[in-house]
Amino acid sequence: MDKMIKRLLLAGAATMIGALGFAGVGWAQDATAADAAETAFIFNTFSFLFNGALVMWMAAGFCMLESGLVRTKSAATICTKNIGLYSIAGLMYFLVGYNLMYDGVDGGFMGSFTWLNSTDPGYDGTGDYSTPSDWFFQMVFVATAASIVSGTLAERIKLWPFLIFVVLLTGIIYPIQGAWQWGGGWLSEAGFSDFAGSTIVHSTGGWAALIGAILLGARKGKYGANGAVHPLPGSSLPLATLGTFILWLGWFGFNGGSQLALGTGADAAAMSQIFANTNLAAAGGVVASMILTQVLYKKVDLTMALNGALGGLVSITAEPLAPSFFSAVLIGGVGGVLVVIAVPLLDKLKIDDVVGAIPVHLVCGIWGTMAVPLTNDGANFTTQLTGVVAIGAFVAVASAIVWTVLKVSVGIRLDEEGEALGADQTELGLEAYPEFGQGSQRI
Amino acid sequence: MDKMIKRLLLAGAATMIGALGFAGVGWAQDATAADAAETAFIFNTFSFLFNGALVMWMAAGFCMLESGLVRTKSAATICTKNIGLYSIAGLMYFLVGYNLMYDGVDGGFMGSFTWLNSTDPGYDGTGDYSTPSDWFFQMVFVATAASIVSGTLAERIKLWPFLIFVVLLTGIIYPIQGAWQWGGGWLSEAGFSDFAGSTIVHSTGGWAALIGAILLGARKGKYGANGAVHPLPGSSLPLATLGTFILWLGWFGFNGGSQLALGTGADAAAMSQIFANTNLAAAGGVVASMILTQVLYKKVDLTMALNGALGGLVSITAEPLAPSFFSAVLIGGVGGVLVVIAVPLLDKLKIDDVVGAIPVHLVCGIWGTMAVPLTNDGANFTTQLTGVVAIGAFVAVASAIVWTVLKVSVGIRLDEEGEALGADQTELGLEAYPEFGQGSQRI
Amino acid sequence: MDKMIKRLLLAGAATMIGALGFAGVGWAQDATAADAAETAFIFNTFSFLFNGALVMWMAAGFCMLESGLVRTKSAATICTKNIGLYSIAGLMYFLVGYNLMYDGVDGGFMGSFTWLNSTDPGYDGTGDYSTPSDWFFQMVFVATAASIVSGTLAERIKLWPFLIFVVLLTGIIYPIQGAWQWGGGWLSEAGFSDFAGSTIVHSTGGWAALIGAILLGARKGKYGANGAVHPLPGSSLPLATLGTFILWLGWFGFNGGSQLALGTGADAAAMSQIFANTNLAAAGGVVASMILTQVLYKKVDLTMALNGALGGLVSITAEPLAPSFFSAVLIGGVGGVLVVIAVPLLDKLKIDDVVGAIPVHLVCGIWGTMAVPLTNDGANFTTQLTGVVAIGAFVAVASAIVWTVLKVSVGIRLDEEGEALGADQTELGLEAYPEFGQGSQRI
Repeated sequence: MDKMIKRLLLAGAATMIGALGFAGVGWAQDATAADAAETAFIFNTFSFLFNGALVMWMAAGFCMLESGLVRTKSAATICTKNIGLYSIAGLMYFLVGYNLMYDGVDGGFMGSFTWLNSTDPGYDGTGDYSTPSDWFFQMVFVATAASIVSGTLAERIKLWPFLIFVVLLTGIIYPIQGAWQWGGGWLSEAGFSDFAGSTIVHSTGGWAALIGAILLGARKGKYGANGAVHPLPGSSLPLATLGTFILWLGWFGFNGGSQLALGTGADAAAMSQIFANTNLAAAGGVVASMILTQVLYKKVDLTMALNGALGGLVSITAEPLAPSFFSAVLIGGVGGVLVVIAVPLLDKLKIDDVVGAIPVHLVCGIWGTMAVPLTNDGANFTTQLTGVVAIGAFVAVASAIVWTVLKVSVGIRLDEEGEALGADQTELGLEAYPEFGQGSQRI
Repeated sequence: MDKMIKRLLLAGAATMIGALGFAGVGWAQDATAADAAETAFIFNTFSFLFNGALVMWMAAGFCMLESGLVRTKSAATICTKNIGLYSIAGLMYFLVGYNLMYDGVDGGFMGSFTWLNSTDPGYDGTGDYSTPSDWFFQMVFVATAASIVSGTLAERIKLWPFLIFVVLLTGIIYPIQGAWQWGGGWLSEAGFSDFAGSTIVHSTGGWAALIGAILLGARKGKYGANGAVHPLPGSSLPLATLGTFILWLGWFGFNGGSQLALGTGADAAAMSQIFANTNLAAAGGVVASMILTQVLYKKVDLTMALNGALGGLVSITAEPLAPSFFSAVLIGGVGGVLVVIAVPLLDKLKIDDVVGAIPVHLVCGIWGTMAVPLTNDGANFTTQLTGVVAIGAFVAVASAIVWTVLKVSVGIRLDEEGEALGADQTELGLEAYPEFGQGSQRI
Repeated sequence: MDKMIKRLLLAGAATMIGALGFAGVGWAQDATAADAAETAFIFNTFSFLFNGALVMWMAAGFCMLESGLVRTKSAATICTKNIGLYSIAGLMYFLVGYNLMYDGVDGGFMGSFTWLNSTDPGYDGTGDYSTPSDWFFQMVFVATAASIVSGTLAERIKLWPFLIFVVLLTGIIYPIQGAWQWGGGWLSEAGFSDFAGSTIVHSTGGWAALIGAILLGARKGKYGANGAVHPLPGSSLPLATLGTFILWLGWFGFNGGSQLALGTGADAAAMSQIFANTNLAAAGGVVASMILTQVLYKKVDLTMALNGALGGLVSITAEPLAPSFFSAVLIGGVGGVLVVIAVPLLDKLKIDDVVGAIPVHLVCGIWGTMAVPLTNDGANFTTQLTGVVAIGAFVAVASAIVWTVLKVSVGIRLDEEGEALGADQTELGLEAYPEFGQGSQRI
């Protein structure tokens, strides 16, 4: 839910509680009302911490998914990128991002370029939640957007230019488009609806990845003559599966925590519906992609099943609360189908997306956002399309500028020899599995 | 605790709170009482979400445990089965299972064949928890039962027939026996006691696995002439260990959440005792199995230590609240001993249980259920035996019917060539570790 | 925060709530006050369970970190040690440790040698939290200290002597020094400050590891003639990265739960600040270590980045509440720098620390403790130094005695042949990856 709207609702609830207190027997009743407000403060704050911790855990999920889907010679580098990007996201969102996204947006395009100079403000009897808890919850969302990019561009992008892109994505690009909606900016006023970020988080990561993949080019050997596509199978499907389960678990926090409160029975009931719908959409995505790959290819493809789960999850993210259980299964199932269709389509376009992040996060992100009006009467297709296009255009253009500047200045791609040797040897001078696979040949 | 009983207790507590309110100063006091009820609603609901998320995480634990204990040539298939079964469990428990288990059982044998047509009901000021949160918590238990089966039957069962079995296990078989006890059916009225499911979840999975293993036969090469047993060592003991730690963590939710409430101080205290006892039983299982394998075989066996932890956990699951800390250690320690004894016993019977799920979940599940009267005065051995036998007979017979129908219709076993090549190549056309082990020989 | 101090504060808060009640309209108001106290009891208790579960998860993190940083031939043994030590820690802390640390310390040096004979005490309307929940939270801290030791001594220490050391560390050594501060002993009265255990947990583990490493000697082949250092690269950097992410996640519980309460708005606000600071310190550690290794060695080193995260986390652990966001980044960043400096320093001293636990936990533990007065006016450098030296001396001497007795009695080191073959073959008679690496050579 949009933070601005949420704040108004919470303020309204507090007023009601206060009113009940004043209608009572005076001073002692006020004390009771204060207790109820404090209890709500604790619940709301703790919800950010609990759900934020689940979303933080998604950073590990992306890392495992990606390290399982790259070849052994790039597995240590993708781990380095993932722990690096999560760290950078945290620093940048403190130094620039949070206030740029939330401080004084007021229907406009961005907040203030100031850092969040926070020490423990304690609890003064007012407020609905602790600011650091909200920062924590919003920060892990930024990291998610950055994680999406690393998977697509794996195995051939240089480490430091990638991290510089992450600095700008998490400090500037993400917060500005986030301000439009969750910061109470122009899109929010226009009536756009994106509960937990199908567009704001997932498509944003997807657009940045897509532009990067086009400018970077495919891995050597991926595409042959006459449209031939050579699969470059990932090094560890169990790790990729672990990563998917981690992401699935973390998504309960991603969507559930986006209720932004737990201080009332209504909030708790809403969070429950969201947990259940999130699970059902993912399950729908898995089963749809398994059946479809069986039909199309006469075999189930594990990587498609994993991406089917993620596609289902992204699809339900724009509106995890309004759908019935049955609708959630359908919305996620369509996501699973879209993934199975989009993966070979990208290969036709010779866009090399190592982990399938563009089908999952961009394609299903758009689908999920456009599906909101199907179950939420407060949304309409025109405004949803406006949001998808506006944010897509902004992120694509901004990413193109940054990637291009990086490309013509420091360069973004490993040289041919370095790519053949592998990013781990070239960038880190070590191997992910020195006694296995490639590594064992040198023992 | 049984849901029916719990509901009565919760209703009683709510009445008491209401009574206190009415004894006070009228309207304003009612508002206070309502606040207390709403706070309890939030706690109860959130407990289902928090503990349910931990249990959901057990799906990843089973997946890692199993993918570490199968050979490389079957590791991707076991991952496919695990993400598939978790998805199917969720869908079936929504479409059939939940209402079949809980809706109008009333001392009988099953509820209604209707789906849970739920959209967010909000909070109307009544009720003890949100229905979707309860559905979420109960659903992840169903998935656990199905996970148990996949491990035993790994490496030689066909993918789709296994998943069809999962459809029937999670949609029909599990919910019906669950209705007998947790749905308030005849076993519950008879006084059976199974707090978090040693019998209802773990033995149920164990019986289904045992019958499947008998009908399926052992892996080629496992049993030689003259009773020789050839170990077929698992591909990654670190992943198996990770899986065990995940399961241990998830079990806090499994047992702790089965308190079914967190809305009172008594509930919070009970959940604490359960967390501590659960941990101590697992620790007892580990230490007992390590010492016993050292004594018997002059070496510690890591896989026995891991299964010792799980055996301890299953053993304490039927009654994690009543035992003292010391009793919890003993109950879990016996579980660890039983695992070490039962594993070679199964091999003598030429029942090939790839991961040791039958010793852990069936044998320790029976032990844990029969041990309840040792610490809980409200239970007695006769009724416990009745529950163990009744549920065991029902699940075994139902499973035998389903497995047999599958065997004579579509077949349940890979052909010899397919098994030799490995399930991953045969069923999925890919490899779990294309650059390592088997895979690297083809590079 | 120290438990004794915390208890006094909580008691004060309860008194205030009670006072408000009595100032009201009599009996009915008392009921309201009781509800508020019960709500706080639930929050405080649940905080121990939630945060304790996160810290329990760190046991898996250490296991993955260590199994990824040892060679394949020792990976199953390190898994055995980790699940064994976590189990032993739980048993010993119940049988001896908890009461030795907390029961009747009263400004002195230790509590009573009695076990915690706890069955569910229910909730009698008094008390701030459930005792088993506190036991659970404190127990997982003990396990953390033991986990630190296993990493340093990997690949050449014998299994059972190591586990005997763990028995004494977790049952006696850790609880006694813990009693000095968190049990309300002499250090607490002297004004020492160690919020979540930079010294009490991390340095304690670090000292025990350092003394062990000196007495045990380096792995064969690690140090050559003329000061040559031969790297013995770890078997799986993705697993090591996973372990680091797990530890990072668990650390929110480690530091956040050390607030020891969640029952007031102030507690919730404090926990939020702690979560944010913990994350920022880790991020600072990663970025500092990445930049420093790039500058020093012209390449980023993934293992340094991982240890940089952990160094940042240890550094903020002594005082995660008082620092501003910016200070947290700096405190963690210094930790990351210290790790990069200390790792080669240890190699110069020919102290073979397989995973870098001494730089991370001992060096950064001291730094974090000494940094407390920089942001917390209630602490001073002299008292901090007193605590660091007193605890360090006690743990070092006690560890030296235990290690020496073990060395001259049963021996602590594998023989040369056994070490060359690998701990897995020698101690367990199996292999971690039988189809990969070393193992595959025998197929």
